[in-house]
Amino acid sequence: MKKKIRTALISLSDKSNLKPLLKVLKKFNIKIISSGGTYKKIKKLRFECVEISDFTGFNQILGGRVKTLHPKIHSGILNIRNNKKHQKDIKKNNFENIDLVIVNFYPFEKALAQKKNHKKILENIDIGGPTMVRAAAKNYEDVTVITSNDHYLELLNELKIHKGATSLEFREKMSRIAFAQTAYYDSLISNYFSEKSKSPFSEKKIFFGNLVEKLRYGENPHQQSAIYSQNQNFNLKKIHGNQLSYNNYNDIFSALSISKTLPKNRGTAIIKHANPCGVSITKNKLDSFKYALACDPISAFGGIVSCNFKINHKLAIELNKIFLEVIIANGFNLKALKLLKSKKNLRLIDASNFNFNQSHKFSSIGNSILLQSEDNKIFSKRDFKVVSKRKPNKQQFDNLIFAFNVCRYVKSNAIVLASNYTTIGIGSGQPSRIDSCKIAIDKMNEFTNTKNDIVAASDAFFPFVDGIEKLVQSGVTAVVQPAGSIRDKEIIKFANATNTVLIFSKTRHFRH
Amino acid sequence: MKKKIRTALISLSDKSNLKPLLKVLKKFNIKIISSGGTYKKIKKLRFECVEISDFTGFNQILGGRVKTLHPKIHSGILNIRNNKKHQKDIKKNNFENIDLVIVNFYPFEKALAQKKNHKKILENIDIGGPTMVRAAAKNYEDVTVITSNDHYLELLNELKIHKGATSLEFREKMSRIAFAQTAYYDSLISNYFSEKSKSPFSEKKIFFGNLVEKLRYGENPHQQSAIYSQNQNFNLKKIHGNQLSYNNYNDIFSALSISKTLPKNRGTAIIKHANPCGVSITKNKLDSFKYALACDPISAFGGIVSCNFKINHKLAIELNKIFLEVIIANGFNLKALKLLKSKKNLRLIDASNFNFNQSHKFSSIGNSILLQSEDNKIFSKRDFKVVSKRKPNKQQFDNLIFAFNVCRYVKSNAIVLASNYTTIGIGSGQPSRIDSCKIAIDKMNEFTNTKNDIVAASDAFFPFVDGIEKLVQSGVTAVVQPAGSIRDKEIIKFANATNTVLIFSKTRHFRH
Repeated sequence: MKKKIRTALISLSDKSNLKPLLKVLKKFNIKIISSGGTYKKIKKLRFECVEISDFTGFNQILGGRVKTLHPKIHSGILNIRNNKKHQKDIKKNNFENIDLVIVNFYPFEKALAQKKNHKKILENIDIGGPTMVRAAAKNYEDVTVITSNDHYLELLNELKIHKGATSLEFREKMSRIAFAQTAYYDSLISNYFSEKSKSPFSEKKIFFGNLVEKLRYGENPHQQSAIYSQNQNFNLKKIHGNQLSYNNYNDIFSALSISKTLPKNRGTAIIKHANPCGVSITKNKLDSFKYALACDPISAFGGIVSCNFKINHKLAIELNKIFLEVIIANGFNLKALKLLKSKKNLRLIDASNFNFNQSHKFSSIGNSILLQSEDNKIFSKRDFKVVSKRKPNKQQFDNLIFAFNVCRYVKSNAIVLASNYTTIGIGSGQPSRIDSCKIAIDKMNEFTNTKNDIVAASDAFFPFVDGIEKLVQSGVTAVVQPAGSIRDKEIIKFANATNTVLIFSKTRHFRH
Repeated sequence: MKKKIRTALISLSDKSNLKPLLKVLKKFNIKIISSGGTYKKIKKLRFECVEISDFTGFNQILGGRVKTLHPKIHSGILNIRNNKKHQKDIKKNNFENIDLVIVNFYPFEKALAQKKNHKKILENIDIGGPTMVRAAAKNYEDVTVITSNDHYLELLNELKIHKGATSLEFREKMSRIAFAQTAYYDSLISNYFSEKSKSPFSEKKIFFGNLVEKLRYGENPHQQSAIYSQNQNFNLKKIHGNQLSYNNYNDIFSALSISKTLPKNRGTAIIKHANPCGVSITKNKLDSFKYALACDPISAFGGIVSCNFKINHKLAIELNKIFLEVIIANGFNLKALKLLKSKKNLRLIDASNFNFNQSHKFSSIGNSILLQSEDNKIFSKRDFKVVSKRKPNKQQFDNLIFAFNVCRYVKSNAIVLASNYTTIGIGSGQPSRIDSCKIAIDKMNEFTNTKNDIVAASDAFFPFVDGIEKLVQSGVTAVVQPAGSIRDKEIIKFANATNTVLIFSKTRHFRH
């Protein structure tokens, strides 16, 4: 049903784009109530406006903390227009209807972003605004609520089409958006308090995001999908190519989580189906990619390449030779960009400004949500203990740490073989560890013929000797694994018998 | 800083456990303000209480929609006690402090659960309650807010220890809980409106859950973790064993998502590292498990078994022979239960009442959240198209559908070999499809020697002939795969040349 608007209450923290709105309200003879900064702005724009305190007969107090929390305001919003008892109450109290509520909140999110002090952040918790919005949204059958100037145009259209009224459909939509807004606002506050008190696992937990874009589809074409950002800024800049897909995004973040942990300006990671299929660190940019690719050039087909450096022309020529879905880098030089842009099915992402800043991750599974802190520990030698008689040389140790770091981004059970700061065999996603060993070895035998030391990392302990045995038989000279098996001693014994370096890590790195 | 409580405002939807609270408030001479049902209840319990309308001088109107939305209430809550200007305002208006706010909200969640009509659900959106709670929570440096009777005891303790006052630490904690509560409440409302209007991908998206339990740790011991339920009822009943771990829960839901899709009372799924390593459907319960186990008895070690039927004694004897972390079933008979309970490291779950009822799933990755509708389509023959000259017989077709259903729960790239409604080889988690084929075939050759027809399912199309070629060479006589490769025609040609049944599915089933 259409509802004529006679009176509007306007209270805005963000006062932009007000003028065209006021013009149309005036055109339809809509009375405006407002206060404070919004009142001043409306008067300055030379429109008529009633001060809220004149409307209620109550002067705002407590420095503005209490001004709209008044029965006349909330009765004006909340009364059901076709309820006789309500109308009797309104008449008796000499109240009047408020048909349109245009409110946006104190900028709590901005205060957080600006890292204001706690007192200022508290002061930016809006009480009156959300109350009016919630009241109007509850009573959307009679009242229109607007919570963002993104919707001014839509409102003006409604008013024009319906001659100063709004449709039920529009009011319901705005009400839905309003409740998303109040939920989001209080989620921000709740999250701020949780972080402040270091209590991530509260009884009621809220996760929230801002829509980045609706995606063409989800993991598969029959699934609908969208991507949300937990921050105000997404910081991932697509500079060329078609819309990114669900699987692209999934792979992009997998890729970034690895390449952000590699030493700056020298790391390349190649991802397929959310698993790395090649990782290398080398000072020479071209080699960094070439070595990563050499690990499994077949799987890299249709994959995603992430370089934690700026891509130059030489590398671009090489990248251009194979079919890739996405290339991520800390920028591209002009010649490189020009060359790569010639491929229409390739997406290019500039991730220079991207940083992981979430301390926790979560995922829904069935009817539940599993929440955990991120596995983002940076390894140093102190996290490892040499348990074999043979001690690692510096290069072996560094390669073991490199392999162990990659290993944590591989789906379990994970085995990573490496040589010269480059993966040369990755075994992933197997329910038994020996199978992951076999896969890694097969990859190595298929694509690599190294004369350097080969090291191996395992994301969890070997339950039996068979896994490490297989690795050593295939040329591995140093192994890192978490401790914890009842057969740890047997494993150490085997390492010593074969003169293999064995290092125990303090941390396990399952990933599913 | 401690803050003495002189006046409390109490407004409750859930009025249980009120008496012991009132006793203590009386002991410390705390004045009580209340209204409506709460006022009546307090008077009935024979405690003194001031009606809110007497306090404010304003009669509640609009059938209770407006009663506490009054400056006297909110000034009493919101004034900063050590701010001279605030205190001047309070004095001038003849207002008084409200130091304790005990409020719980209209039962919106209950109204939803009871599937009330839209009007009744709207009426259960509380406006006054959340406003008082938010005001008190904002002003926690001076005011104590209690939003659930779960916290009465803690409050009473505070009052006793601090002789009628509360500590800043307690007030801040209660404030944090209050904002989680208001965020959760509006999230429910927002979610209700989204579902009503079929708009799952709103600009601001909120996900929320109720804490089920904090977990010992996350995927790995150095990660903290907790599990939340998206529903009020978790419906997963642990009837024996130690606390479930993060990885247990992850595997349990993977297991249930498969076994809930299998024909009732005959399906068994075994899970390890969130991947199935054996699935079977057979009328005989013992066989159902035995066949599922036979697919990969080594990987099943330390795994999770899920039966979509009640476990009997015969089966329990068999289950007892191997090391399992969890057994899930639609109940256990008494003898079975007694036997299985003798294993102290085994967890038993009764999932009789468990049903998946989420239409969407989400997961955080990096700073983002990927949201998509569930891949829960139930297959029928109409979803498939026979493209080979050779047509499948009924059993082949049924087995292909069985294999294709299992395939969608296997991490990509996924290949599932099946015979006689039982998986006999599962290849998972590989970046190249041919590797998943090899793994599945290796498993089959290692553990199974079937004389029945062998069928194969692939979660996405074969990009080259090599994959299907490998399968047919290993004895596969019928294959199902989604269409879509530029080499589809070659694949069909190969199938016809080898007299293989080939079926194209309309849907792809990537899972990462």
